[in-house]
Amino acid sequence: MSEPEKLGFIGLGIMGLPMAENLLKAGYSVAVFNRNRRKAEGLASRGAKVAVSPAEVGRQARVIFLCVGGSDSVCQVAESLLEGVQPGSVVVDCTTISPSVSRRVAEQFRSRGADFLDAPCSGSKKGAANGTLTFMVGGDKKVFQRVEKYLSAMGEKIFYIGAQGMGLQLKLTQNLIGALTCQAMAEGFVLAQKAGLSPSLVLEVLQASVASNPMIAAKLPQVLKRSFEPNFSLKWMHKDLGLMLESGRELNVPLPATALVHELFGASVAMGHGEEDFAAAITLLETLAGVEVKEQ
Amino acid sequence: MSEPEKLGFIGLGIMGLPMAENLLKAGYSVAVFNRNRRKAEGLASRGAKVAVSPAEVGRQARVIFLCVGGSDSVCQVAESLLEGVQPGSVVVDCTTISPSVSRRVAEQFRSRGADFLDAPCSGSKKGAANGTLTFMVGGDKKVFQRVEKYLSAMGEKIFYIGAQGMGLQLKLTQNLIGALTCQAMAEGFVLAQKAGLSPSLVLEVLQASVASNPMIAAKLPQVLKRSFEPNFSLKWMHKDLGLMLESGRELNVPLPATALVHELFGASVAMGHGEEDFAAAITLLETLAGVEVKEQ
Repeated sequence: MSEPEKLGFIGLGIMGLPMAENLLKAGYSVAVFNRNRRKAEGLASRGAKVAVSPAEVGRQARVIFLCVGGSDSVCQVAESLLEGVQPGSVVVDCTTISPSVSRRVAEQFRSRGADFLDAPCSGSKKGAANGTLTFMVGGDKKVFQRVEKYLSAMGEKIFYIGAQGMGLQLKLTQNLIGALTCQAMAEGFVLAQKAGLSPSLVLEVLQASVASNPMIAAKLPQVLKRSFEPNFSLKWMHKDLGLMLESGRELNVPLPATALVHELFGASVAMGHGEEDFAAAITLLETLAGVEVKEQ
Repeated sequence: MSEPEKLGFIGLGIMGLPMAENLLKAGYSVAVFNRNRRKAEGLASRGAKVAVSPAEVGRQARVIFLCVGGSDSVCQVAESLLEGVQPGSVVVDCTTISPSVSRRVAEQFRSRGADFLDAPCSGSKKGAANGTLTFMVGGDKKVFQRVEKYLSAMGEKIFYIGAQGMGLQLKLTQNLIGALTCQAMAEGFVLAQKAGLSPSLVLEVLQASVASNPMIAAKLPQVLKRSFEPNFSLKWMHKDLGLMLESGRELNVPLPATALVHELFGASVAMGHGEEDFAAAITLLETLAGVEVKEQ
């Protein structure tokens, strides 16, 4: 199939909206649905067809992207989408959800004759806007090859990872490492601050060492500027840590530090930082230690 | 003072021996002492003067480097060195110990008219051999300037950090981040392995993301090769985590993830991995999960 297929996009949030825009910019025909209809209508002027339900997207499109909030949202959307989806269509789920839930949903679509890929992405809001996301795709390889060109309109690096659910498994591994790195930054820099060290000097020396860390180099300026506008919000990272623990329980892998950081990030969400970038997790420790990480 | 001073070096272990060799190679006159005398005698053929005690090093040298095991060893060496140290001499302690213990020892030397710097280093065995260590120095800045040229014979990056103890405080921050990163690698890669992902693919995708991590890129090959020859041994990292917790208690900074990783690394030491590189901390989780991180 070299003729472009009709596309669908369900979920126009912080990530989904710019992703759908990039499909439209690339010249594809896209049917869109969003729970809050106003966001979908904003795309109509750019050529999108606004659908009234996921089922309608299913009837109109042959390759349908999902980018919604989490496992519950995927299951809700799937319920409606299953009513309209056509045999031979592909559903590409870009939401980060539990690999086992994803495999269950894939099975439901397969029973209607449709294919399903898990295709979570990294690169945050900025990557979604610039079309430089990284996609990690699990599912049938031939199906992956069919949709690769559409993913390329939204992302820069497209990895085929393996069987159904494996894209998600890899994404969760990445976020686990990101979350624990953020906690390491919090503990290291709050202790250093209270001892009287300059955070910029700590970063400079750290970057000269084997412990050098691009994520800390990217996140520390947000902390110093007290500007926690979300690239990736704390509530989503907290959710993903929960998914990792779920995966650990299913696979019998104890994840002690992940469990602790899940609790700590949960405390930060409870303190009201859920909508901020996950770098804001440092404020819990700052509050407890009675110090703020900043230049003196 | 542009004429090179007589130097001393106490502690010829995995780090100290190559550091002392680099001072000798640079043409300095060095009096050496080691508890196990054989290692000191090995340096005699390269021009070192073998002393019978730290006190004798104190009598012979004007700038004396220490590189011993930990706080207790520094206190023991100081007891003897204080008997021989000359007024106007400088003691440069390259051992990673508690900042508050270091400040106490510095005070003892000051009462004999000698100066003291805390100058812990990073770069491991390889950096010590190649003379590419990073030094983080705390204490009087003029005293730092007096010894900087000698540190340059052993290291590539020499940072003046601030007041007494601040070099150590920064070194501990660095190791805290390194240890937590190692635990993140352990949890992420053991979970990924059990789920059926290839560790090399996980690393490749990770390195393409904002969570990219030079330390994991350096440590994972050791894990895959099951080759835990120490660059920095687990027992020393465990000790340093203990020092960070001590510092946290003194400064009223709770360090929940550091405390957990300290316990986990302690369990790995108890399992017999203390002499291996700290990357071997992953074996605890592998044992519990019944899986080994490797290519299939």
